[in-house]
Amino acid sequence: MADAGLTSLRTAVAGVSGYAGGELARLLLRHPRLADTPPILVGRIGESETPPVPLTSLHPQLSGLPHADELNVAAFDWKQLQHKSVDVLFMATPHEQSRAWVPEALSHGIRVIDISGAWRLHDDENRKVYRLTDADPLLAEKLQTEAVYGLPELHGPAIAHARLVANPGCYATSILLALAPLVRANLVDLGCGIICDAKSGVSGAGKSLIPTSHFMYAADNFSAYAVFGHRQTGELLEQLSLTSEQIQFTPHLLPIPRGILSTIYVRLNKAIGAEDIQARFDDFYANAPLVRVRCSPQLPQIQHVVRTAFCDIGFQLSPDGRRLVVVSCIDNLLKGAASQAVQNMNLMAGWHEREGLL
Amino acid sequence: MADAGLTSLRTAVAGVSGYAGGELARLLLRHPRLADTPPILVGRIGESETPPVPLTSLHPQLSGLPHADELNVAAFDWKQLQHKSVDVLFMATPHEQSRAWVPEALSHGIRVIDISGAWRLHDDENRKVYRLTDADPLLAEKLQTEAVYGLPELHGPAIAHARLVANPGCYATSILLALAPLVRANLVDLGCGIICDAKSGVSGAGKSLIPTSHFMYAADNFSAYAVFGHRQTGELLEQLSLTSEQIQFTPHLLPIPRGILSTIYVRLNKAIGAEDIQARFDDFYANAPLVRVRCSPQLPQIQHVVRTAFCDIGFQLSPDGRRLVVVSCIDNLLKGAASQAVQNMNLMAGWHEREGLL
Amino acid sequence: MADAGLTSLRTAVAGVSGYAGGELARLLLRHPRLADTPPILVGRIGESETPPVPLTSLHPQLSGLPHADELNVAAFDWKQLQHKSVDVLFMATPHEQSRAWVPEALSHGIRVIDISGAWRLHDDENRKVYRLTDADPLLAEKLQTEAVYGLPELHGPAIAHARLVANPGCYATSILLALAPLVRANLVDLGCGIICDAKSGVSGAGKSLIPTSHFMYAADNFSAYAVFGHRQTGELLEQLSLTSEQIQFTPHLLPIPRGILSTIYVRLNKAIGAEDIQARFDDFYANAPLVRVRCSPQLPQIQHVVRTAFCDIGFQLSPDGRRLVVVSCIDNLLKGAASQAVQNMNLMAGWHEREGLL
Amino acid sequence: MADAGLTSLRTAVAGVSGYAGGELARLLLRHPRLADTPPILVGRIGESETPPVPLTSLHPQLSGLPHADELNVAAFDWKQLQHKSVDVLFMATPHEQSRAWVPEALSHGIRVIDISGAWRLHDDENRKVYRLTDADPLLAEKLQTEAVYGLPELHGPAIAHARLVANPGCYATSILLALAPLVRANLVDLGCGIICDAKSGVSGAGKSLIPTSHFMYAADNFSAYAVFGHRQTGELLEQLSLTSEQIQFTPHLLPIPRGILSTIYVRLNKAIGAEDIQARFDDFYANAPLVRVRCSPQLPQIQHVVRTAFCDIGFQLSPDGRRLVVVSCIDNLLKGAASQAVQNMNLMAGWHEREGLL
Repeated sequence: MADAGLTSLRTAVAGVSGYAGGELARLLLRHPRLADTPPILVGRIGESETPPVPLTSLHPQLSGLPHADELNVAAFDWKQLQHKSVDVLFMATPHEQSRAWVPEALSHGIRVIDISGAWRLHDDENRKVYRLTDADPLLAEKLQTEAVYGLPELHGPAIAHARLVANPGCYATSILLALAPLVRANLVDLGCGIICDAKSGVSGAGKSLIPTSHFMYAADNFSAYAVFGHRQTGELLEQLSLTSEQIQFTPHLLPIPRGILSTIYVRLNKAIGAEDIQARFDDFYANAPLVRVRCSPQLPQIQHVVRTAFCDIGFQLSPDGRRLVVVSCIDNLLKGAASQAVQNMNLMAGWHEREGLL
Repeated sequence: MADAGLTSLRTAVAGVSGYAGGELARLLLRHPRLADTPPILVGRIGESETPPVPLTSLHPQLSGLPHADELNVAAFDWKQLQHKSVDVLFMATPHEQSRAWVPEALSHGIRVIDISGAWRLHDDENRKVYRLTDADPLLAEKLQTEAVYGLPELHGPAIAHARLVANPGCYATSILLALAPLVRANLVDLGCGIICDAKSGVSGAGKSLIPTSHFMYAADNFSAYAVFGHRQTGELLEQLSLTSEQIQFTPHLLPIPRGILSTIYVRLNKAIGAEDIQARFDDFYANAPLVRVRCSPQLPQIQHVVRTAFCDIGFQLSPDGRRLVVVSCIDNLLKGAASQAVQNMNLMAGWHEREGLL
Repeated sequence: MADAGLTSLRTAVAGVSGYAGGELARLLLRHPRLADTPPILVGRIGESETPPVPLTSLHPQLSGLPHADELNVAAFDWKQLQHKSVDVLFMATPHEQSRAWVPEALSHGIRVIDISGAWRLHDDENRKVYRLTDADPLLAEKLQTEAVYGLPELHGPAIAHARLVANPGCYATSILLALAPLVRANLVDLGCGIICDAKSGVSGAGKSLIPTSHFMYAADNFSAYAVFGHRQTGELLEQLSLTSEQIQFTPHLLPIPRGILSTIYVRLNKAIGAEDIQARFDDFYANAPLVRVRCSPQLPQIQHVVRTAFCDIGFQLSPDGRRLVVVSCIDNLLKGAASQAVQNMNLMAGWHEREGLL
Repeated sequence: MADAGLTSLRTAVAGVSGYAGGELARLLLRHPRLADTPPILVGRIGESETPPVPLTSLHPQLSGLPHADELNVAAFDWKQLQHKSVDVLFMATPHEQSRAWVPEALSHGIRVIDISGAWRLHDDENRKVYRLTDADPLLAEKLQTEAVYGLPELHGPAIAHARLVANPGCYATSILLALAPLVRANLVDLGCGIICDAKSGVSGAGKSLIPTSHFMYAADNFSAYAVFGHRQTGELLEQLSLTSEQIQFTPHLLPIPRGILSTIYVRLNKAIGAEDIQARFDDFYANAPLVRVRCSPQLPQIQHVVRTAFCDIGFQLSPDGRRLVVVSCIDNLLKGAASQAVQNMNLMAGWHEREGLL
């Protein structure tokens, strides 16, 4: 286990009222390294002043956890964050807010782990879906270049030293962890395109009251959406160096609260044995404590990962050794958001990647 | 089957966009007596003018039913309703609208079946929860006196001749049908109070986007609400002639789309045999084609009534013959709203009560 | 509506205790042409003698339907079926039973609609998954050649005159209706393979008590299964004249009672416009009353088809006009089993295809 | 926090394959006091010899927890338990097994926490529902007298020194914690009877394949069962010193995996203020770290307690101050089984009651 690293950290969470924010609060309250330094909880940046709200009125299920019943969610205030010597700020805020306020946080010497999509994409074209506007475009571009895509299994060393970590999208996390070992080894026939048929629980759509999150819409139902235009597509293209013709990503809405399962269809460049594929995955994740590679033909399923920080990966190979079906599962609020953010924080502090996450 | 009655009817539905309105449209489109006279569908009364909307864009699942793909939902317009000689207007509208517009409908010679709570209560005190305001209080009071509570099993003959039928609440329907046979026969020890522990699916809360109808709130959850103050309590008091100390009604939210199950606890005035209770229920509903009395100790369950027009009732008696548990189930959108409205229409037209409802 | 055809039919259902059998009973009891000739209900063929069981004790939700409360499920008896002049026998029985008893039914002059997989496949190799054994292999082979695959939209005229109709699998129904218009028009680039990512509710696994149908396994979960070996794959290969390398079918288990959604990924031979694809689907199903083609980019979803006899189909095309995503939905117990069987019966009797199915 | 008590313990779990057993394994693996002494896992007592099975093949979601991937579930063997100096044996076994083998465990000097119903009831009459047979009735009676009912909030000191702890039933836990403060203070009018309308998720019925745990039975459904005869009724009678006429307990099956909510209706002996009721609950549980008393009129709901070791209690009082509705929630697998067992172990070891349970 990790013995090096900082003794502790002072953390802050902006946007604690949402699902990911609530999970983040829970993880930080239970983190052994942070037992004496509970996170500072603040509302969304720029929100009109409201009196502080008890954390447990927003998330009653947290009551009884250490510190939880004393913590309030206060209005956002840079002075307070500086005054309390915040080391790491988690931003569980809308991407417009994250884009606007990250420069200021960094200027105060605060490292940022941003859970929104604001800083994930380097290509202008891909980023258009977010319609970002920057007060200081030059600075924003500079910070964008500096930002590290916070998928620890792919970018661990860079994350450790990053000032700005862009926590990956939930769908992208599940798909990238399944594909990176194959694409990086040039095993994939890209001419036929990779098909990523992904399914997510309703929490992925957030807490806001929208028709597709109404119980009567989601329950007993299943539907595809954003077929050729989901925002996380850009993360797949950039992280795997693919063109949009080489990968098709289709999200679907599952009638469950939490969990993502991605079924990924890959044509291989040449026939290969299942044991070679297995070895490739096993080796790639030999030092990744939060990826569990299943032994083929076992496949992961959502209930094995829900409320855990793991990504489970399994696969099956066609009899002719040319077609591969990879299945990848995560909890969208944890490995797809909050626990991945804590995993990044652990790396940034020099702690063991999975500390506080089991 | 019924051969008497009118040949057909011209119906209209106001407020067809909600869940009850959609079910009403479905039932009317399939009603054998209305095969040549599809309902006129209109939006909420007083809504700002919008271009007509195809019915199937509001309720895609209705596509393919007779007439469904040609029908539009138009803006509300009294002239049009008169011009088309509408006989019966179903109002699946908020209670304020129903209260405001029923007098006008009646003045145009249109009979009304109102699905809201606007006209169900005769006692001023009970009605306060609705905060009704009347433009013409004297007329409103006169119409209120005339209004018939539309529970066909209790008020069939009055419904047949009514101009204004107040369709019962969904919880009240399930509870009244379970209790009326017992209370009317003076079997109940009212001193200890009747306990009605009722549970409803989420559609009971309607289509509007409210936090408690969000999938993440309702799914995998269960909760009590409105413990001493649900609006339908007044219906129980008036229809059973009870005081508020004599009956306790507690609604709960079930994580399912549709269905109500009420568990009702009754102390009896004297020890009695299960066969006598059974006979009481069987006799009471001998001519009620849409109540299915189960043979004790069999109990109804929600999946037996969902998507049917039936109310199922069953009971079990304590070994000492003094304590009775009655269980009553309905589909809240059907027997609790739309099919009960059609059942009332059938009676008003002189048709068989269950025509078009099996 | 259809005026030709037989006046009525005498039907029988073997295996009425399962989910598809129950739905079949419901549809036949409500069928307008069969109002005076309720189906004869019998248990599984060869079951040890048990006293007749009331239909409503097996399916309490059917109580109150015409005839339902008088009908019993009797032991299977060929003499009785002949004596009662049964015209059409629905077999909702395990495939071994269907394979064994169809020859006898036909020898008695009874036409058969078999809901099992016993008679769907013509190719020996594809059929191996069923491990069928035939008492009279020559006769079985002859009958197999005669058997018509009961997908009315593809084989309507042959079904009308068939003695033996093999009702399609539920997954196969949803996929074939989506693909047939494209494959038959040679629009598909088969070199890259068609990907069929299909998801089904739990009723597809039947009523037997198996670990994967336990509530605790299925609820809040989602999983892939039978990745390279589902039995219905053979139906896809034969009906579309494909090789197993040309199509990949992966079923998944949805945490809902009913419904199938198949997401189908197709590479096109050449760039084509969305309006041409739309026209192809519209034309292909112009005379198919139980297929609803959605207008692109609208996509079907499960709740629009559940408890209906429809198959809904929609699609979206990539910006480069080369990659097509087709989504197809059915209720697995209806269009995937019972209502499709009734649709076939309608054709065999010369009635309108959708009679009794709206 | 607790500093006294033993340094560590050697634990064993019999019957680890079920839901409660799996949760118990998870809690023990994560317990800070047991970090170096993982539990010994054994199958059901008396099971035919099978090769050891990896824990993670029974509970794949546990993979990655400390020790989890090395642990096997071995056949039951008293010698091994003695050899390994087991201090505390958790029995997550059927009640017949628990009844049969507890005497032997105690004779080996092993303390037992029994999760079954075998040792909870002292009254012969109440115990009849379990149909227990004892090889040595005198010894069994002696041990029964010695057995401590393992509800820590009521019997903490006795549990601390017990050799045999009978872990309470899940329903009984939720009801007793709600009623004990009221009944012990003689606030309840027992003449009218207490009504306990309780609702549980499906895991309460265990992992065995029974029709009522089939997804198709439980999903979208809700039903009452065992109305006048649930086995846990005896626990209520004995722990509250009531007669069967004084309390009515009706369990219902909720379509969710986990959680119990009990709605409890109490008539009070005299009118009383809500603040007095609140004070009574607050005082009673002032030192109970795993009971969260809500501030009236707030009520608990299932999603606030699921996957926690807490019991949440809230209440509302009628305007006349005579009728009380108390709502109590737990996770049936945790506070209703596994975490309560660990809470008992903590007391037996002299550790803080909630150690390892947050």
